[in-house]
Amino acid sequence: MANGLPDAGGTERKTARLEAFSDAVLAIAITLPVVDLHMKATLVAEAASVGAAYAELAPDYIAYAMSVVVIGLYWAHSHFSGKIVEKTDHGFNLLTVLFLALVSVTPFPSGPFAAHLAGDGESRMAAVVYAGVLAAPSLAWFVRFLYARWRGLHDPRLAPVYLRRLTVKYASTAALFAAGVAVTAFIDWRVGFLLVALTTLGYLIPPQRPQFLPGQEPENELQEAGERPR
Amino acid sequence: MANGLPDAGGTERKTARLEAFSDAVLAIAITLPVVDLHMKATLVAEAASVGAAYAELAPDYIAYAMSVVVIGLYWAHSHFSGKIVEKTDHGFNLLTVLFLALVSVTPFPSGPFAAHLAGDGESRMAAVVYAGVLAAPSLAWFVRFLYARWRGLHDPRLAPVYLRRLTVKYASTAALFAAGVAVTAFIDWRVGFLLVALTTLGYLIPPQRPQFLPGQEPENELQEAGERPR
Amino acid sequence: MANGLPDAGGTERKTARLEAFSDAVLAIAITLPVVDLHMKATLVAEAASVGAAYAELAPDYIAYAMSVVVIGLYWAHSHFSGKIVEKTDHGFNLLTVLFLALVSVTPFPSGPFAAHLAGDGESRMAAVVYAGVLAAPSLAWFVRFLYARWRGLHDPRLAPVYLRRLTVKYASTAALFAAGVAVTAFIDWRVGFLLVALTTLGYLIPPQRPQFLPGQEPENELQEAGERPR
Amino acid sequence: MANGLPDAGGTERKTARLEAFSDAVLAIAITLPVVDLHMKATLVAEAASVGAAYAELAPDYIAYAMSVVVIGLYWAHSHFSGKIVEKTDHGFNLLTVLFLALVSVTPFPSGPFAAHLAGDGESRMAAVVYAGVLAAPSLAWFVRFLYARWRGLHDPRLAPVYLRRLTVKYASTAALFAAGVAVTAFIDWRVGFLLVALTTLGYLIPPQRPQFLPGQEPENELQEAGERPR
Repeated sequence: MANGLPDAGGTERKTARLEAFSDAVLAIAITLPVVDLHMKATLVAEAASVGAAYAELAPDYIAYAMSVVVIGLYWAHSHFSGKIVEKTDHGFNLLTVLFLALVSVTPFPSGPFAAHLAGDGESRMAAVVYAGVLAAPSLAWFVRFLYARWRGLHDPRLAPVYLRRLTVKYASTAALFAAGVAVTAFIDWRVGFLLVALTTLGYLIPPQRPQFLPGQEPENELQEAGERPR
Repeated sequence: MANGLPDAGGTERKTARLEAFSDAVLAIAITLPVVDLHMKATLVAEAASVGAAYAELAPDYIAYAMSVVVIGLYWAHSHFSGKIVEKTDHGFNLLTVLFLALVSVTPFPSGPFAAHLAGDGESRMAAVVYAGVLAAPSLAWFVRFLYARWRGLHDPRLAPVYLRRLTVKYASTAALFAAGVAVTAFIDWRVGFLLVALTTLGYLIPPQRPQFLPGQEPENELQEAGERPR
Repeated sequence: MANGLPDAGGTERKTARLEAFSDAVLAIAITLPVVDLHMKATLVAEAASVGAAYAELAPDYIAYAMSVVVIGLYWAHSHFSGKIVEKTDHGFNLLTVLFLALVSVTPFPSGPFAAHLAGDGESRMAAVVYAGVLAAPSLAWFVRFLYARWRGLHDPRLAPVYLRRLTVKYASTAALFAAGVAVTAFIDWRVGFLLVALTTLGYLIPPQRPQFLPGQEPENELQEAGERPR
Repeated sequence: MANGLPDAGGTERKTARLEAFSDAVLAIAITLPVVDLHMKATLVAEAASVGAAYAELAPDYIAYAMSVVVIGLYWAHSHFSGKIVEKTDHGFNLLTVLFLALVSVTPFPSGPFAAHLAGDGESRMAAVVYAGVLAAPSLAWFVRFLYARWRGLHDPRLAPVYLRRLTVKYASTAALFAAGVAVTAFIDWRVGFLLVALTTLGYLIPPQRPQFLPGQEPENELQEAGERPR
C-alpha cells in the first residue's frame, strides 16, 4: 500500500462479514425492545381488566414504534450503503462497532420520553436525553464515512461528485440532529424534538442512485461493489 | 429505469442481505419468549414443590408453543418466498421492517390469552387483542407482496397466473384474519379465535410449486431467483 | 418429481438459508442464559459482600455451563450434518423449527435442577423435568433425520451403509435419553441423570467421516453437499 | 489424512458457517447488556426527577461501555483471524463454543465492578472477579490457536515465522491478563486492573499484515484463505 497512508496492517477485507455482523446487531437491537413488552405481559395476564391493562401500556407501544422506526431506517440505509463500500479495515470495523453500540442504545430513553410525551415538568429533560441519544449514532455514521473516504474504502468507480454529495448529506444530518438537541434543551422541547423526528423521517425517502465515473458504470444494476471483474 | 415508475433511487439490490436480516429478526423473535420462561425458573428453583411450580406455568408453555407455531410458519413461508423475489428496493426494505416488527410483537399478547383460555370475564378481551396482533403481520405481508408486484421485484420468469394466484391467497389470508378478529370481538371469542388459528395452521400445507413462463423454467429445481445467467 | 412421494409443492431449496436460521437460533439460545446472570448482577453490585454474593450464584454458573455444553454440542453436530443434507423442503423446515424450539428451551429447567443438585426432597422432580426437556430435541432430531431419508434430501452420493449407521446412532441416542428419563423418574435420579449426561457428552467425540458410493467421493475434502458440478 | 494426527472424523469444513455462528453470538453478546439498561428505563420513566434518575445510572453506562469495548475488540480481531484460518474441525468448533461462552459472560461482572469503581472495601473483590472473567477468553483464544496449529487448520501458504509471531502475541496476551489478575488480587486492584485494561486496549492497534511463503502470496489483497484456486 504505497499511497502514503498509515498501514492498516493487512486488515483489509471484503465487507460481507462486516455487513453480516452489522445486520445481526441491528436485528437484535430492533427486536430487544419487545422484551420490555413481554415483561409487562404478566401484569396484563393478572390484571382485573385486561383491556385497561393493555391501554395503560400505551407509552410502551409508542416507545416500541419509535425504536423500530429509528433502527429500521438505519438498517435500510446501511443496506444501501453496503453497495458503495468495497472493503473494510481495522479502523472501519471499530468505528462500525461504535456506531452499532450507539444505535443499540437508542431504545433505552424512548420509554421515559414516551411516558412524559403529554407534557409535564420532566418532559424537557426526557426529550433532551432522547434527542441526544438519537443524535449520537448520526455523528458516528458521519465520522465512519469520513474515515472510509480517507482510507479509500469506497468503490473506486464512484464519481467524486457523488461522494461529495453524500458527505454533505451526512454532515447536514449530524448538524440537524445537533441543532435539534440544542433547541430541545434551550428553546422548546416540542420544536426541538420535532426537528429530530423530521430529520430521522427524512430517511424514508429513498437514497439517490450512485453515480459512477464515465465508462465505469456497473454493467448490471444489481452488481455490487467488489463483484466487478478484476 | 424507463418504466414509468417513481425512481427507487438506485436502491435495488439482490435479496441475500434482506433475507439474512429477516431470518435474524425471526430467529430472535422466536427465541425471545424463552426469556419469559427463564425469569420464572427462579420461582421454580425456590418453590416448596418443584412439580407444582412447573405445573403452574402451564399457560406459559402454551404461550411459548403458540409463538413458535406463528413465527415458525412465517419463517418457513418467507423461506419459500425468497425463491420468487429477485430484488429489493428501499420501499420493500421498509415494508419488510414493518412486517418483522409486527411479527416480533405476536408473542406479547399470547401470555394474557393463555392465562384466560379456560374462559372467564376477561377471555373475550384477551382473545380480541391476540387475534388482532396475529392479523396485523398478515396484512403487512399482503401490502408488501402488492408493492413487489407494482415495482416488478419478482422473478420476471414467473407466470402471471401464478402471481395472480398468490395475490388471491394472501388477500384471502388477510381477510380471514380480519373476519376472525371481528367474530372474536362481536360474536363468540372461541369461534373467532378458532378461525384465526385455522388460518394460521393452513400454512402447515406446503406452498404451491412456482409456475414459470413457457421456455423460462429454471434448468434446475434448486436454482434460485437471481441466479439465472444474465 | 415422479418418485411416488407426495408433492412438496416446489419448496425444495438449498440448505444455506436453513443453516443460517438454525445457527442464528442456536446462537441466541446459547447466549440468552447470560441474561439470567445479568439480572443478578444488580444483587451482587448492591451486596454487603461482593465475594459472598458471587459465591451464592454458584447454581447459576452450573446452569449456564450445562446450557452451553448442551446447545454447543447440538450446534457442532448440526454444523457437521449440514455436510450431508443437500436440500430442504417445507416439512424439513418445520421439523427444524420444532427441533430448534425444543433446544432453545433446554436452559429453562437447568436452574431448578442446579439448585437441587446437592440432593433433597425435590431433587428427583427437578432431575426428571430437566432430563425430559433434554431428551425432547434428540427425538425431534431423529424424526427430522428419518424425514430427510424418506424425502431423499440427503446428498445422493452418500453410501447407504453410512446413512443406515447414522440412523442407528440417532435412534440409540433417543433411546438412551428416554431410558435416562425413566431411570431418573422411577429408579434413582442420580443414575438416571448420569445416563442423560453421558449420552450428551458422547457427542464430544468427533462424528464419523461420511462414506460415499464408489467413484462418487467429492474430489475435495472441503467440498460440500450441493456444490458438486451438475 | 495420512499425517499421523488423530482422525478428525471427516468434520473438516470451510470456516464460513463457523464465522457466521461466532459473529451471531458476539453480536448478541454485545447487544444484550442493553437489556439491563432497558429494565431500568421504567425506573427513569417513573422517577420524580428524570435527570437525577438518568445520572444515578452512571455505573450502568460505564459497564455498557466496557462490555462494548471488550466484545467489539474480540469481534474485530476474530474478523481479521478469519483470514488466516482455512478450515475447521470438530475440536476447533468446540473450542470456539468455549471461547464464545466465556466472551458472552464478560458483561456480567462489569456492573458490580463499575458500582465499586470509586473505591471502597469491596472494590478489590469486584475487580478480581472482573479481571478474571476478562482473562478467561484470552486463554481460550490461545488454546484454540494452538489447536489450529497442531491440526494444520491455518492457511498453508502462511510463513512459519508469521505464525510463530502470532503464537508469541497470543501467549503474551494471556500471560499479561494472568499477571493483571494476580496484581489485582494480591498487590493493588487499581494497578492490576489498569494492566488488564491496557492489555485489552492494545488490540485497538491494527493487527500485523499476514506474511506468506515466497511465491505463495495471494494475488489479491482481498483474497481470503480457502479462496485460492485448487
